[in-house]
Amino acid sequence: MKRADFEHWVRSELDAVESALESWVPADSPAGLGVAMRYGVLDGGKRVRPLLVLAACEAVNGNREAAMRAACAVELIHAYSLIHDDMPCMDNDVLRRGKPTVHVQFGEAQAMLAGDAMQALAFEVLTPDGDAVPAALQARLCSLLARSAGHAGMAGGQAIDLASIGKPLDEHTLRDMHHRKTGALLQASVLMGAATGIPTAGQWDALSAYGDALGLAFQVVDDILDVTQASETLGKTAGKDQDNNKPTYVTVLGLGAARRHAAELRDKAQAALARSGLANAAWLSLLADKVVDRDN
Amino acid sequence: MKRADFEHWVRSELDAVESALESWVPADSPAGLGVAMRYGVLDGGKRVRPLLVLAACEAVNGNREAAMRAACAVELIHAYSLIHDDMPCMDNDVLRRGKPTVHVQFGEAQAMLAGDAMQALAFEVLTPDGDAVPAALQARLCSLLARSAGHAGMAGGQAIDLASIGKPLDEHTLRDMHHRKTGALLQASVLMGAATGIPTAGQWDALSAYGDALGLAFQVVDDILDVTQASETLGKTAGKDQDNNKPTYVTVLGLGAARRHAAELRDKAQAALARSGLANAAWLSLLADKVVDRDN
Repeated sequence: MKRADFEHWVRSELDAVESALESWVPADSPAGLGVAMRYGVLDGGKRVRPLLVLAACEAVNGNREAAMRAACAVELIHAYSLIHDDMPCMDNDVLRRGKPTVHVQFGEAQAMLAGDAMQALAFEVLTPDGDAVPAALQARLCSLLARSAGHAGMAGGQAIDLASIGKPLDEHTLRDMHHRKTGALLQASVLMGAATGIPTAGQWDALSAYGDALGLAFQVVDDILDVTQASETLGKTAGKDQDNNKPTYVTVLGLGAARRHAAELRDKAQAALARSGLANAAWLSLLADKVVDRDN
Repeated sequence: MKRADFEHWVRSELDAVESALESWVPADSPAGLGVAMRYGVLDGGKRVRPLLVLAACEAVNGNREAAMRAACAVELIHAYSLIHDDMPCMDNDVLRRGKPTVHVQFGEAQAMLAGDAMQALAFEVLTPDGDAVPAALQARLCSLLARSAGHAGMAGGQAIDLASIGKPLDEHTLRDMHHRKTGALLQASVLMGAATGIPTAGQWDALSAYGDALGLAFQVVDDILDVTQASETLGKTAGKDQDNNKPTYVTVLGLGAARRHAAELRDKAQAALARSGLANAAWLSLLADKVVDRDN
């Protein structure tokens, strides 16, 4: 019953996110820029970050309009980072979400610009005219998103990643890299959703701990799937970390220990949720399971 | 007298902007990312956009802390766009502000990441904790900056620029490209400064018209300097537009008409300032002269 409700909620939210992105990512932007942006973000991806925003909003009974904007903004940041990450000067990847990558389809210059414009668009989406999203909440959401996307978060993690190719990393450095590269934006998704309501300080801290554990779990599972799944299941090139000689949780811990670590992190996320005392945290709880149990 | 005061004001504000950027662009960011970011934005550039923000703040007697943050944020956006624009997949330029470009110095991947992190940092700088900048003003500044940097502004203009290489453009399309590519961010600089105070609707419109005319004048003069100045005066590769077969105001209008057009736009900017009725608009007025009369 709960599981069926959850699947229904997921499908319905994914439709809502897709419609919102459809309306906010411009089709008519000049010189094909909008077309490249839409190609990079519409109709693809697991949308884990938007679902986390929306589930956290439900948990705190928050402002739905603000949460939908935050959900799309964080997905725009994630999608732009994939576009730039796939470019020849970074991972040089040709397949993403089962399609040719943006630079393969539209050229490198357009791919870089589309990514740049998507980052700006994320902050446009967070700062609408009118009073549906109070100005103080707009500022708070911009602050959370910018800090998780920037030098201390995602971009910083990518720089560590870049510098680590071919080098042995200990678990501590690997964890620091992933905290920033993937964890920061996933945790920010939870906190942006939480910010749309009025959680207590204790609830905020518990949701922060949930987001932190879930963010790391996500990356551990990603590393596991990179060696255990075929490219067609993943929708992106499998075995890529190994080919690029990148340290991963699997290379550092081994496959068995990586699986146990993912399970521990899930437990940690669930414990944090229980600690929050939030009555409506069911979707967050089931999302943590979904992140760990996924096969792509 | 006024001229000497102005030069003193400019020097003192440039020092203040440099100190603020020094403090906000991280030296210790991981894996050399902060070093690349600082290389790309510190100690260089004419800082036209920060000066416009600060002069507009003076004109409306606005919030100084907010204006300094907006000044640095808009310069971060400008500097990131130069880093990405100089990369091999775009203009492939090796010289900027008299130094090797960021990708020449640090590699393409780090240059792309540094640019990405600088865009995020702009929005971090605009959304500080505490109450020195009221939340509503933070949201307004983020909105103005995001819209001028994104698909409808700077990034959109660059996409048109990219698509126009080797094609004849009429003056209308050239103007549209520059309105977005350079004009949007220059105009936003004026409006962000204005937003730190409480201008009347009429003053806002007049400052918007001033920023619009000044933004176009800036680009017309850039096109003139590209053919009339040597690389060492410009601090970047001269004759680059011609080499890249890019349409410019000089190729479309001819040099003499381009010069007359720049003078007309300056007059238009000054007329808008006069219309604003703002008592403290002297720096804005002298900045319009400076933009048109510059030799680099």
